[in-house]
Amino acid sequence: MSIKKVTVLGTGVLGSQIAFQTAFSGFEVTAYDINDDALEAAHDRFAKLVSIYRDEVDGAKDGKADKAAESITLTTDLAEAVKDADLVIEAVPEVMKIKQETYRKLGELAPQRTIFATNSSTLLPSDLKDSTGRPDRFLALHFANDVWRYNTAEVMGTKETDPEVFHAVAEFAGKIGMVPIELHKEKAGYVVNSLLVPLLNSAMSLSAGGYADPEAVDKTWRIATGAPFGPFQMIDVIGLNTPYNILVNSDEDGKKLAAWLKTNYIDKGKLGKSSGEGFYKYS
Amino acid sequence: MSIKKVTVLGTGVLGSQIAFQTAFSGFEVTAYDINDDALEAAHDRFAKLVSIYRDEVDGAKDGKADKAAESITLTTDLAEAVKDADLVIEAVPEVMKIKQETYRKLGELAPQRTIFATNSSTLLPSDLKDSTGRPDRFLALHFANDVWRYNTAEVMGTKETDPEVFHAVAEFAGKIGMVPIELHKEKAGYVVNSLLVPLLNSAMSLSAGGYADPEAVDKTWRIATGAPFGPFQMIDVIGLNTPYNILVNSDEDGKKLAAWLKTNYIDKGKLGKSSGEGFYKYS
Repeated sequence: MSIKKVTVLGTGVLGSQIAFQTAFSGFEVTAYDINDDALEAAHDRFAKLVSIYRDEVDGAKDGKADKAAESITLTTDLAEAVKDADLVIEAVPEVMKIKQETYRKLGELAPQRTIFATNSSTLLPSDLKDSTGRPDRFLALHFANDVWRYNTAEVMGTKETDPEVFHAVAEFAGKIGMVPIELHKEKAGYVVNSLLVPLLNSAMSLSAGGYADPEAVDKTWRIATGAPFGPFQMIDVIGLNTPYNILVNSDEDGKKLAAWLKTNYIDKGKLGKSSGEGFYKYS
Repeated sequence: MSIKKVTVLGTGVLGSQIAFQTAFSGFEVTAYDINDDALEAAHDRFAKLVSIYRDEVDGAKDGKADKAAESITLTTDLAEAVKDADLVIEAVPEVMKIKQETYRKLGELAPQRTIFATNSSTLLPSDLKDSTGRPDRFLALHFANDVWRYNTAEVMGTKETDPEVFHAVAEFAGKIGMVPIELHKEKAGYVVNSLLVPLLNSAMSLSAGGYADPEAVDKTWRIATGAPFGPFQMIDVIGLNTPYNILVNSDEDGKKLAAWLKTNYIDKGKLGKSSGEGFYKYS
């Protein structure tokens, strides 16, 4: 089960990073998106990644990053994109209907041997497997934003995923410079968010409840664990809208935290690092 | 409200560290314990701290650590220990009755001006304030194990604590090389355990539930947050009995985690780093 040709569906933030990292690692990559505007945007994203890799990634100077970007085939033709793919990594919008429709088409267009992997953060592969027509060759491969720095690739199958497929995808993840994190059973939030969400919620509870200021909470965390960033610094990087959207759809306690985030930060334009201010100011 | 003479009650693991760090920082320190055996043990603890400080703490060579140990007055006479203290830091066993009885005696023996601070991890200062006879001059000052490395000092008063006392104790914490973490309201677990416990529980849930192995969980955490240690490595350092004792007295989910810890680790003698093995092996 050899993976050589990889197709990435969706060229948004994560899709473009996955395509780029895979091409940078020497694989033959095709990136698909729905129209020319999207491909134009993808082109710009790749250009930005070239510049980031040059600065931050070992071995990315001397044209290797440029070559990776040039090597990616961009197309709006799904049939063409997947006709010879060993692995399709799906990174289309997190909307069940869009994903299901994508898998339905994909199941018809891709060769029988092609493995499908979803990068979905919020859906379980079980939610999608029936749309694929090949549940044994389908699983989740979950990347984190800024793949070149936060290089975990969480591998999570369903009960129907062929163990050889699971193994091949974990191995592929290693070959593109990721650290494969193998999950033995399906888990919403995978490992990373199953750990992060309770920490970030506890931190917000402390400050929203008036027990301690974000700075004090972060300081405590950094000293106690040796971590470079405290939970509020992490939320600033993630962006405050992400926890807000999770919390506003959760239980009573969560809704209270969401309201606190909204009133004190989001409504004031403090959306996190990318907006220049969140819990902290950035210049 | 000047703090110069400090008395530490209880010379166990934390008490001896607090006394030593305070003496090392140039304060006049008396350490009290209940009998000569306890004081003998304290003497040994101070000797070990001298050696640790020499290796790990800036400026501890050239006899400064030795001098700190020598400067500490050891006594089993409570009246003598507190008769001229500006601040008494209580680090006696975490048993309500022992603490209450200690404060009752202390309230009678110490001068009116003396501030009392409890290092209790599990009791709130509200639980103890009435025993002190001086709730306005009483608060919690909570240290972490290995104070020279994990140098947070959480300062937490009750509604009755005089703000000037709170301020003076926070300032004192800074003077002995701690980073004062100010809590505005009482919170069980302070900041540090309010953050750590949910993270460690989530990590144990992932492994106990068969989703991912401790190594995979730790790896994910280290990469995602840049922290030097994952949650299972942290538990190994803390010792598995600590989360076990918390979990076994908690809700259904907690009891399940406790049982998992017991069966797979504690019953096999895998108690953490100090026993040579926990989730990982140590040599």
